[in-house]
Amino acid sequence: MATSGKVIRCRAAVAWAAGHPLSIEEVEVAPPKAGEVRIKIVATGICHTDEHVLKGCFPNVEFPVILGHEGAGIVESVGEGVTSVKPGDKVIPLCLPQCGECSFCLNPESNYCLKCQGKQIHHFLWVSTFAEYTVVPEYAVAKIDPAAPLDKICLLGCGFSTGYGAAVNTAKVKPGSTCAIFGLGGVGLSVVMGCKAAGASRIIAVDINKDKFAKAKELGATDCINPRDCQKPIQEVLTEMTGQGVDYSFEAIGLKETMIAALASCNMSTGICVMIGVPNSASEISLDPMLLLTGRAWKGSTLGGWKTRDCMPKLVSSYLEKEFNSDLLITHTLPFAKVNEGFELLRAGKSIRSVLLF
Amino acid sequence: MATSGKVIRCRAAVAWAAGHPLSIEEVEVAPPKAGEVRIKIVATGICHTDEHVLKGCFPNVEFPVILGHEGAGIVESVGEGVTSVKPGDKVIPLCLPQCGECSFCLNPESNYCLKCQGKQIHHFLWVSTFAEYTVVPEYAVAKIDPAAPLDKICLLGCGFSTGYGAAVNTAKVKPGSTCAIFGLGGVGLSVVMGCKAAGASRIIAVDINKDKFAKAKELGATDCINPRDCQKPIQEVLTEMTGQGVDYSFEAIGLKETMIAALASCNMSTGICVMIGVPNSASEISLDPMLLLTGRAWKGSTLGGWKTRDCMPKLVSSYLEKEFNSDLLITHTLPFAKVNEGFELLRAGKSIRSVLLF
Repeated sequence: MATSGKVIRCRAAVAWAAGHPLSIEEVEVAPPKAGEVRIKIVATGICHTDEHVLKGCFPNVEFPVILGHEGAGIVESVGEGVTSVKPGDKVIPLCLPQCGECSFCLNPESNYCLKCQGKQIHHFLWVSTFAEYTVVPEYAVAKIDPAAPLDKICLLGCGFSTGYGAAVNTAKVKPGSTCAIFGLGGVGLSVVMGCKAAGASRIIAVDINKDKFAKAKELGATDCINPRDCQKPIQEVLTEMTGQGVDYSFEAIGLKETMIAALASCNMSTGICVMIGVPNSASEISLDPMLLLTGRAWKGSTLGGWKTRDCMPKLVSSYLEKEFNSDLLITHTLPFAKVNEGFELLRAGKSIRSVLLF
Repeated sequence: MATSGKVIRCRAAVAWAAGHPLSIEEVEVAPPKAGEVRIKIVATGICHTDEHVLKGCFPNVEFPVILGHEGAGIVESVGEGVTSVKPGDKVIPLCLPQCGECSFCLNPESNYCLKCQGKQIHHFLWVSTFAEYTVVPEYAVAKIDPAAPLDKICLLGCGFSTGYGAAVNTAKVKPGSTCAIFGLGGVGLSVVMGCKAAGASRIIAVDINKDKFAKAKELGATDCINPRDCQKPIQEVLTEMTGQGVDYSFEAIGLKETMIAALASCNMSTGICVMIGVPNSASEISLDPMLLLTGRAWKGSTLGGWKTRDCMPKLVSSYLEKEFNSDLLITHTLPFAKVNEGFELLRAGKSIRSVLLF
């Protein structure tokens, strides 16, 4: 391309400090060095994790920073030695890379990658998709089917894959089982979709915002509960509804109270509770160890347990084959310049996912 | 038998109050009612859980009480309708029953039983084996091979099965994996045996009492570490020893500090930490949720996950076939009258298991 090898001047949404709106600025994006890929971002979702950073919940993220990590785009140019993608390829930049060589990547049960360590913030989560162009290492890029609509499958870069994978990979939900999902944002609703795809017979969606219930039911929830409408703690309500508690519970909020409630809501002997929501970095949970000792399992899930470079192309294929419809998560589509409006919708609980188009 | 249908007057070790030695008293044991079994106890181990009760750690256990829950004996008589055992059968009384009918028993993945609820203390943990005779429900009795030496296989009633099963059932330790075991009492050493039987390639035994290390090595430990000899927290030591932390960690003490250390010692992405040690009923653990969120799984294990009536006979068969040698856990054999001496040995850390003979 004409821009290959040159610095590109383009727009990006810069977070100058916590608690302030993003500012659309012109930035300079250097050409990719050896092993790097420069991507023209076409679309990006706004995820709650971006909002967490903006609120100042992650002291290890330094400002100014270009946020965004749920994007999709087209390779503009590649650095020396890059072989897996070429200019023109449609790609998802990976907020969790897969180098293929470290002990985690070589372990079939892990989707973490040692490249993450000590370098969590390359821009932000490697990818900084709130910019027209971004440069990422080759091991943080997944080439996808050229037929994929980038304005839709950008959600697969984080939110959808995180929730869906928590159900099908981390919990390994079984057919006929009962599930409860705490938090009906983009991730929680993707858990609902994963539970349904896995054949769960009862899917109980929990949120204090009843405006989310219609979407939850559309995606597969069989029951929706607002804990504020209950006379008893939600874990007691769920245990009574299901006899002995649900088989699988999921926390997709990041609050310590709901983490404990989710744990206590699952079967005391065989229940599996999956923690997905990212807590404030300073938070500590206090729990009665008997909650676990009776037999429950409490698991964390990062990006749904997917090995990203291996699985993103497959997830995109599944999307194209209509195995799931993540489009239903997209409630708003906005031009990139309206990034702050997207954040306002998120804060007000009025959106599930806003997708920004460049 | 001559005693059938009559009250039996016999000796029992009565705990009159927390913090006091047991007192050998004559007690009256009623004949078994419908669905019950009266057992002549031949041998019983002393378990740390008995000591916990004696220290007053379980406020829901009312005094006076006859403790003991790791026994073996011979059926003396049976009540109306009992069909699974007959007088003369060798049996293990089950401190976790298996009724075979409740939702937990019908769930192949659970070994809990609803009969436990609201009636945790039938005498003590159903069985009260610190007595020459005891009466238990039929669903809390497992008939075993008549060739079994009762003075040895009594350990299968609690300690051995709890630890061994935590490795092979709850953690499902894989061949070639790395394991760490916190606490080298009877349960922890049984975890060591389970890890070895499962084919673990590295078994790291952790205790602050180095007198336990020789036995741990005899049973399969490849490394023994005293955290008090370390310059760094034990979780850092274990992580450095193994690269990314162990594949499986086990806590067989019941202290919140070691529960967190065990969790932090296993691989951040794929590690499985099994909680076995029973904490004080009032204790709360505080943890950083990030320990889990990165992918670890934290599981509880009750009586090693064995469905007791189904599995105890099989475990006894495995013992007789020398698949494991739980005899190595028995450091002392004492007459029943020396029950308090047995507790003193346990408190001083001088015994693994003391077996009392009637």
